[in-house]
Amino acid sequence: MQLFYEPLATDTSFILNKEEAQHCLKVLRKKKGDQVTIIDGKGKYYLCVITDDNIKNCQLEVLNVETSTLPDRHIHIAISPTKNLDRTEWFVEKAIEIGVSEISFIVTQNSERRHIKLDRLLKKAVSAMKQSLKATLPVINDLVPISTFINEQKVDSTATHLIAYVDDANPLLIQNAITNSEKVLVLIGPEGDFTSEELELALTSGYQKVSLGKCRLRTETAGIVAITILNNV
Amino acid sequence: MQLFYEPLATDTSFILNKEEAQHCLKVLRKKKGDQVTIIDGKGKYYLCVITDDNIKNCQLEVLNVETSTLPDRHIHIAISPTKNLDRTEWFVEKAIEIGVSEISFIVTQNSERRHIKLDRLLKKAVSAMKQSLKATLPVINDLVPISTFINEQKVDSTATHLIAYVDDANPLLIQNAITNSEKVLVLIGPEGDFTSEELELALTSGYQKVSLGKCRLRTETAGIVAITILNNV
Repeated sequence: MQLFYEPLATDTSFILNKEEAQHCLKVLRKKKGDQVTIIDGKGKYYLCVITDDNIKNCQLEVLNVETSTLPDRHIHIAISPTKNLDRTEWFVEKAIEIGVSEISFIVTQNSERRHIKLDRLLKKAVSAMKQSLKATLPVINDLVPISTFINEQKVDSTATHLIAYVDDANPLLIQNAITNSEKVLVLIGPEGDFTSEELELALTSGYQKVSLGKCRLRTETAGIVAITILNNV
Repeated sequence: MQLFYEPLATDTSFILNKEEAQHCLKVLRKKKGDQVTIIDGKGKYYLCVITDDNIKNCQLEVLNVETSTLPDRHIHIAISPTKNLDRTEWFVEKAIEIGVSEISFIVTQNSERRHIKLDRLLKKAVSAMKQSLKATLPVINDLVPISTFINEQKVDSTATHLIAYVDDANPLLIQNAITNSEKVLVLIGPEGDFTSEELELALTSGYQKVSLGKCRLRTETAGIVAITILNNV
């Protein structure tokens, strides 16, 4: 199945944006009268019929609307961008495939990268959403310092706050820290990990220190392992 | 920590191969008298001192040998290679980071790729092993038809045999199929999944059909999700 993304879709009729119309009409050669499925990134699938197959004015009439089921758990990952941005893009793709509700980027003292290309990451995200047949685009937040992030998140007292940190002496596995929690936020550090000051700040702000298992993982792998475990326990 | 790979390492003294010696002596500028740690890919770490820092004859004397702990579970993934080989290389890297004992490649009817570059994949594997500070290189088996693979694996009756297959009506989650099994083999299909004949062959050969969750996953993501769950439940 092929999905097209139109964030401004409505329940009656709407125009498909030029980029998606190009793909739909030029590449896949859909014509007036053909049926297509549109997603709005907010959880809805629109089964439509093409009523005008002009690329600049691709009109769709809605035949049926379906709402996607909500995920069992709201998963929010705040992660340091990787030195090589490819790895961060890869993280975004896989995170969406496996299932994530929100991704935030944080700068920490050991972060080797201090800027991201949010546009590129959003494009990756849209493409992963379509490819994995999802109708909801996760919220993706631009890079902020970890202290700003922790301060902003303080207001959300309904979530379980976790920080992934290598502590060989006293590891609490992430799967044992989230008993039935419907909303989980996990901080994932850079190569070289969080500093002890950053860990301290998180702990005093109500975060719990968790382990993602015995193996040494790259940043982007740690993010994916956390999401996989949170979706499956 | 930086590890160097020498599959012919011994407990007393040995010569480091030229490729690793180049990295050790040229790039990292190690000299005679410096200490380095070597892995043999078979589970041993050798703490050594450099006794000759000639790249063509980099001699090492062993000071101490440590054996890595065995993984809790022997995980064997048999996976169809992806159309774009980058994704398969990525799978190998992440599989080793998260923890896998054996990777096999299988051609199925819907496989879009019918050859792999085993050399390249082995290089990726060695590099992932070193990066994640492991001393054991997983066995990586060349591509064979799925029927050949299933026939060969029949001899191993100590393993739990699973096939990942999308069955919305009656899904058995992988984490519920492996109760305490110390050895698990999972077949992962191509985009377009296994054919019903392939599924039938696996089922009649003693494989159990399992689900990796509700989300539609790419082949390489399915492999990583399986490995993550098997390492964490």
